[in-house]
Amino acid sequence: MRLKRAAKKAGQSPGTLTYVGVEKDQKVKIQIIDYDPNELVEKEVDSLDACMPYTVKNTVTWINITGIHNMELIEALGRQFGLHPLVLEDVVNTEHRPKLDDFEDYLCIILKMLYTDVRKKSIVHEQVSLILTPRAVISLQEFEGDVFDPVRERLRKGKGRIRSQGAAYLAYALIDTIVDNYFHLFEDIGEKIEILQEQVISAPQPQILQQIQDLKREMIFLRKSVWPLREIISAMVRGESSLLKENVIVYLRDVYDHTIQIIDIIETYRDMLSGMLDIYLSSVSNKMNETMKVLTMIATIFIPLTFLAGVYGMNFKYMPELELKWAYPMLWILMIAIFVAMMRWFKRKKWL
Amino acid sequence: MRLKRAAKKAGQSPGTLTYVGVEKDQKVKIQIIDYDPNELVEKEVDSLDACMPYTVKNTVTWINITGIHNMELIEALGRQFGLHPLVLEDVVNTEHRPKLDDFEDYLCIILKMLYTDVRKKSIVHEQVSLILTPRAVISLQEFEGDVFDPVRERLRKGKGRIRSQGAAYLAYALIDTIVDNYFHLFEDIGEKIEILQEQVISAPQPQILQQIQDLKREMIFLRKSVWPLREIISAMVRGESSLLKENVIVYLRDVYDHTIQIIDIIETYRDMLSGMLDIYLSSVSNKMNETMKVLTMIATIFIPLTFLAGVYGMNFKYMPELELKWAYPMLWILMIAIFVAMMRWFKRKKWL
Amino acid sequence: MRLKRAAKKAGQSPGTLTYVGVEKDQKVKIQIIDYDPNELVEKEVDSLDACMPYTVKNTVTWINITGIHNMELIEALGRQFGLHPLVLEDVVNTEHRPKLDDFEDYLCIILKMLYTDVRKKSIVHEQVSLILTPRAVISLQEFEGDVFDPVRERLRKGKGRIRSQGAAYLAYALIDTIVDNYFHLFEDIGEKIEILQEQVISAPQPQILQQIQDLKREMIFLRKSVWPLREIISAMVRGESSLLKENVIVYLRDVYDHTIQIIDIIETYRDMLSGMLDIYLSSVSNKMNETMKVLTMIATIFIPLTFLAGVYGMNFKYMPELELKWAYPMLWILMIAIFVAMMRWFKRKKWL
Amino acid sequence: MRLKRAAKKAGQSPGTLTYVGVEKDQKVKIQIIDYDPNELVEKEVDSLDACMPYTVKNTVTWINITGIHNMELIEALGRQFGLHPLVLEDVVNTEHRPKLDDFEDYLCIILKMLYTDVRKKSIVHEQVSLILTPRAVISLQEFEGDVFDPVRERLRKGKGRIRSQGAAYLAYALIDTIVDNYFHLFEDIGEKIEILQEQVISAPQPQILQQIQDLKREMIFLRKSVWPLREIISAMVRGESSLLKENVIVYLRDVYDHTIQIIDIIETYRDMLSGMLDIYLSSVSNKMNETMKVLTMIATIFIPLTFLAGVYGMNFKYMPELELKWAYPMLWILMIAIFVAMMRWFKRKKWL
Amino acid sequence: MRLKRAAKKAGQSPGTLTYVGVEKDQKVKIQIIDYDPNELVEKEVDSLDACMPYTVKNTVTWINITGIHNMELIEALGRQFGLHPLVLEDVVNTEHRPKLDDFEDYLCIILKMLYTDVRKKSIVHEQVSLILTPRAVISLQEFEGDVFDPVRERLRKGKGRIRSQGAAYLAYALIDTIVDNYFHLFEDIGEKIEILQEQVISAPQPQILQQIQDLKREMIFLRKSVWPLREIISAMVRGESSLLKENVIVYLRDVYDHTIQIIDIIETYRDMLSGMLDIYLSSVSNKMNETMKVLTMIATIFIPLTFLAGVYGMNFKYMPELELKWAYPMLWILMIAIFVAMMRWFKRKKWL
Repeated sequence: MRLKRAAKKAGQSPGTLTYVGVEKDQKVKIQIIDYDPNELVEKEVDSLDACMPYTVKNTVTWINITGIHNMELIEALGRQFGLHPLVLEDVVNTEHRPKLDDFEDYLCIILKMLYTDVRKKSIVHEQVSLILTPRAVISLQEFEGDVFDPVRERLRKGKGRIRSQGAAYLAYALIDTIVDNYFHLFEDIGEKIEILQEQVISAPQPQILQQIQDLKREMIFLRKSVWPLREIISAMVRGESSLLKENVIVYLRDVYDHTIQIIDIIETYRDMLSGMLDIYLSSVSNKMNETMKVLTMIATIFIPLTFLAGVYGMNFKYMPELELKWAYPMLWILMIAIFVAMMRWFKRKKWL
Repeated sequence: MRLKRAAKKAGQSPGTLTYVGVEKDQKVKIQIIDYDPNELVEKEVDSLDACMPYTVKNTVTWINITGIHNMELIEALGRQFGLHPLVLEDVVNTEHRPKLDDFEDYLCIILKMLYTDVRKKSIVHEQVSLILTPRAVISLQEFEGDVFDPVRERLRKGKGRIRSQGAAYLAYALIDTIVDNYFHLFEDIGEKIEILQEQVISAPQPQILQQIQDLKREMIFLRKSVWPLREIISAMVRGESSLLKENVIVYLRDVYDHTIQIIDIIETYRDMLSGMLDIYLSSVSNKMNETMKVLTMIATIFIPLTFLAGVYGMNFKYMPELELKWAYPMLWILMIAIFVAMMRWFKRKKWL
Repeated sequence: MRLKRAAKKAGQSPGTLTYVGVEKDQKVKIQIIDYDPNELVEKEVDSLDACMPYTVKNTVTWINITGIHNMELIEALGRQFGLHPLVLEDVVNTEHRPKLDDFEDYLCIILKMLYTDVRKKSIVHEQVSLILTPRAVISLQEFEGDVFDPVRERLRKGKGRIRSQGAAYLAYALIDTIVDNYFHLFEDIGEKIEILQEQVISAPQPQILQQIQDLKREMIFLRKSVWPLREIISAMVRGESSLLKENVIVYLRDVYDHTIQIIDIIETYRDMLSGMLDIYLSSVSNKMNETMKVLTMIATIFIPLTFLAGVYGMNFKYMPELELKWAYPMLWILMIAIFVAMMRWFKRKKWL
Repeated sequence: MRLKRAAKKAGQSPGTLTYVGVEKDQKVKIQIIDYDPNELVEKEVDSLDACMPYTVKNTVTWINITGIHNMELIEALGRQFGLHPLVLEDVVNTEHRPKLDDFEDYLCIILKMLYTDVRKKSIVHEQVSLILTPRAVISLQEFEGDVFDPVRERLRKGKGRIRSQGAAYLAYALIDTIVDNYFHLFEDIGEKIEILQEQVISAPQPQILQQIQDLKREMIFLRKSVWPLREIISAMVRGESSLLKENVIVYLRDVYDHTIQIIDIIETYRDMLSGMLDIYLSSVSNKMNETMKVLTMIATIFIPLTFLAGVYGMNFKYMPELELKWAYPMLWILMIAIFVAMMRWFKRKKWL
Repeated sequence: MRLKRAAKKAGQSPGTLTYVGVEKDQKVKIQIIDYDPNELVEKEVDSLDACMPYTVKNTVTWINITGIHNMELIEALGRQFGLHPLVLEDVVNTEHRPKLDDFEDYLCIILKMLYTDVRKKSIVHEQVSLILTPRAVISLQEFEGDVFDPVRERLRKGKGRIRSQGAAYLAYALIDTIVDNYFHLFEDIGEKIEILQEQVISAPQPQILQQIQDLKREMIFLRKSVWPLREIISAMVRGESSLLKENVIVYLRDVYDHTIQIIDIIETYRDMLSGMLDIYLSSVSNKMNETMKVLTMIATIFIPLTFLAGVYGMNFKYMPELELKWAYPMLWILMIAIFVAMMRWFKRKKWL
């Protein structure tokens, strides 16, 4: 239960940095990419101090911090860049809702990076915070490994507009990459739904119901990660921040469209999963009906016949039929006739 | 799964042209219709360059491009008309949501052309992009064959206002034709629903449930194609673009009404399909009830009779009834009496 | 399917007059009532030309046209009163959604006149268009017979304010009469619902489910006719048109209240019909339960007894009970005791 | 069906006074309370004329009229106080939706007074109209008996602010009393729901379903009476009328809070009633399941045993078992063993 | 039923103080914490008079009153701080909806403090009212014991910003603590839901349905406590009150985010509980299906065999089979063959 950790913080002073994620003793990784249209420096550093020379230069600096469980580092970050304590609190609170905070000279954008963990076969909701200043982007991640490699590649190759468009464009590129990766995730989920859809008709087992419910719940969680994103990007597009110029806003509008598309997909999947539940329930009903028909046919055919056999098994002294030579074969004929008549009747009722 | 292709693009530089549709090696077709109230030139050309002379003349030029998988052509188009790279990206992304982009000197409108593929008996969602400049309309389609023939006819015959009303009116005429064709589509679906509605009562088979669900899902997809259209045309009607003058807006308001009407139809169909699901489920229940009644009647009549026959089949030495001469016929009379009483009881319970 | 006809128009030039209603060769009827506070002239004329003299006088003229399948007449109307081609197109498109078009010097209001066709026992959705100019009201209807007789009566008698309040007041009076008649319609439907409500409990037949669904669908259609009306009258009340003065707006506000009330009624009926569906389904379940109880009681009583009879019907050589003199009556006593015990058990379980 | 009466009015001239309530020949009662901080006069008068002297004095006058079926009186009222004909029409139309009409120099507020009729055990929806002028409040009720006695008491005793705060405060006090009385009503309904909730688990009878549906429908009607109230009081609080000064608005805000609370209660009850329906349906399912288990146990135990008995009741000449001395007791042992095994199996399946 | 008490007040003069909570004769407790950045005085006093000297000093004073059933005290409070009578009425009405009242020189904030009563295992909804003046916060609680201890600790230790930020910051700290405690509550509920979720699949008992419904209802009540909070804090954040400066608003925005997160959790839990209901219902259906299968298998196997046994139990004189030596063993072989065939058929149908 994700909630458990959020409750740890109750009653603390605001701005108290409390890492609510999984405890880790892994080392924090700081990676710098500093570039202008002509040059690009990329290196891994040990401390924030090593970053500061780059931030004063007239270049764009991307500081990527992996591992946010080191509170001293986060505090140092706050001091160096003059960030509000509440921003730092939000950044380390890995259960935070996606949100946008606009502090005139910097923006803080909190997003969820969603991807399928291949080994655990579960969906990872990793929190990524982006802090955008006029000439730098600071990205903070929970775990190693991210989806930003194509952006790094584009930076290194000087491919596209990216090297000449400033820090806001870099922030856009990172957000865009995160959002584009949602499509990968939903592709996987879409396949799962298609498989379920076939099974629900061919073999409606109770486990399938469980799987449908699990997917429905997953959808609820994904929705919570994506819905606020819509508002965030919409707020950025409205151009209220001086950090976002028209040249970036036109691209953000594109991300906005993608967000809408993802929300559409989520709603569609939810509708489809609800539809599958209806099919499942009616499949169970149908199966029960089939069972009932078998029982009814057997009973309807053999109960009367057994009655007839019972009649001629009685021990009355005076039963004229018993003495007749052809009585026994006649009775067989009668019973077969009843059987055939019943079968025809069932056929006419379309039970066979 | 349509989604699969959208995911191809993740992490790419924005404005990268990626055709996500079906791969094709078919040749791209470019058709020009250039007209003013007095004259009309119509021809098929090989390259965009052949179009450019017309665009500088004081006439309205309609450039219709079929096949958007040729990236060089799209890039050339962008260069010639000064289109934003994101517009080009959207145009070739055939999974794009319908949208309107207003770039002061041109408008980009992305729509879905919906029609039933007669051979595959499935609904085709073809993307059509319209680029409206002050004196030209560029329409981009995915596949050969479209619904624009009546517009071409009206242009050729100089019928109606169309020849004298400028490029915006032509764009309107194309949008209007696309929207009007939705009605054809929904007429087909309406017929399917009516047929299902009869079957669901007369013969509630599990396949019908499947068909209802398929139609429901189809409705979800159609809704996604039509809903955004409402916003797009509403935005055009609000008259924020200088390309759309009052003389065209009055017609767009008409298209807006049609869009509302189509959305109404979709909602009505959804309600009707939900209602059919209820009927289906209750039909299954009713059938089960019928089966149960048959079983219960047979069992209720013959189990007691069989018991009676069993009693007189016992081998006790001292059973006075067995010796009586009229015992056997008397028992028959009793059993028939029981049978008749039961039948009456069932009749009174309205089971027969 | 109403939709079918709307599709006829796809691809046509806008403003093309296409009558989509039932083809008719009935003659068109034009009725004029021209009045001022002192005088009233009422007559039936053959052509529009006969109306024109009245429209130039300083009186209010009501031109009521029944039958809109005569395209020449409609075109003449457009020419005489300077109406926009799209208005004419909407007027003859009998499947149009209720709407209000404001063209500065005239208003076009499209409404649905709803009433029960006594012979066919179905609800008629007849389209009525009102064109309001400063000194005239033109009403266009599909079929003969309307609900306007009380208005005509009030005009003739000079009763109430109607003779002295101008054309806008007349338009209001017509709309008010149409809306007031909706109440009659919903009264009929309310009675149907009450009858169904009694049947669904006393005799839950599959036909009732069908009737519930039919009513639900009817509600969907009625809703589509009434909902837009709310917006239309609300727009009129906001007083944006110079044709509607404060003296009329106060009355329109009253009509607005009635529209809200009708929408309330529709929503209430929808809720009630949904509730009936729940009752129906649970009634079916209950009935099945009753059937099951009968079967179970019969089986539970007689199967053990039959087993006992079967035991003493066995042919073992050494069965001491068979030789005993009181064995047979003892067995009867035992079987009756089992029967009584079972019956008591069922009574305790409240099955009897 | 309340609707029936509303339809009476269709086609009439607006402002025609039509009493749509129950016909009554009871005498109309007019009660006056005229007060200022120092003095209070309270009397019952025969005609409106007797009220007029009070209204010109510099005091607050409360005219309470019970019985609105006397059209002459209502018309006189309209004349004396200069009320718009539509206001009078609304006041006598007892099926009117709660509403607020602001006519600059007076306000008309239409409310529903809800209370349980102790004898009929049904909820009464009585319409109360308040007309607020600068120095008078006119209240119009349908039936004798109201909830205003505490207000009268406070006036007589000069308790609280009421005597010194003007007519608007009196109007507020009346509205407040009506709204406070809703709580009494919902208390009663809450108790009914609690009783049902216990019954639905202990004894799920079809009548309970009916009662749940009745309460649900009652909720729909109550909702229609309370929802518009929210808008009305919200409009009054916004302070658009010059009759409502800040000193009264602060109290109206309090009434607004209560209205919200009542709407909350209605929504909560609706949710609870829906939940009960689910419990009911699943209780029925559970009961059916229990019935099925009894049948299956009996059949599963005795059908195989009866088969065994049948086998040894056969008349084959050569059946070695029949001759054995211990065959009969051995068979009994076998049958008891089968019985015990079955019982254990059922216990393991948790059917017992 | 909480509602019962709210109804007590109907018809009373507004501002009449009526304590609607549980009657108590417990003594009221008044606790003062008076501080500035340098000093802190904390003591418990007997009467309000003892508080007044602190409020005139240039320090921040927190007056915490536990027990609001003493009407004289509340009235004295109103007099001393010049509070509006309606504020006092709301404060003592413990069933009040959370709300914010802005009276220029003071704010009144009514909240619900939610926590699990460990002994009764039920959720306590305690009302807390905060009155914020420029230099004081008055908090009023119903019962002893609250969640404010961490705030008191921070005040005493001078930890964080709290000592230097004025009264508004203290009010924020109290609200924040209350909201943070909601997370604890929802953690408990989350655990209950998880346990239920496991049970509903493994052992779908009717009691579980009851528990699901109870939790659903609890959710409805919690929702009513939390939803209005969102509006309240949103109103405070909009900064319309001069008492809330930008330095506090930035923190309130943080509380706002938490409120949204809690609302998200509530909606998620509601969805999950609805999903569990579906699983429960389908589990019952599945169980019934299993029961039916057992019955059908037993009946289908043994009814035909019993019939065969019955046939050879008949007493016809001429039945050639009876005389044959191998007839009896042959019949056994036939019966076993039928049994095996049936079992295979069931296996193919996946019933075994």
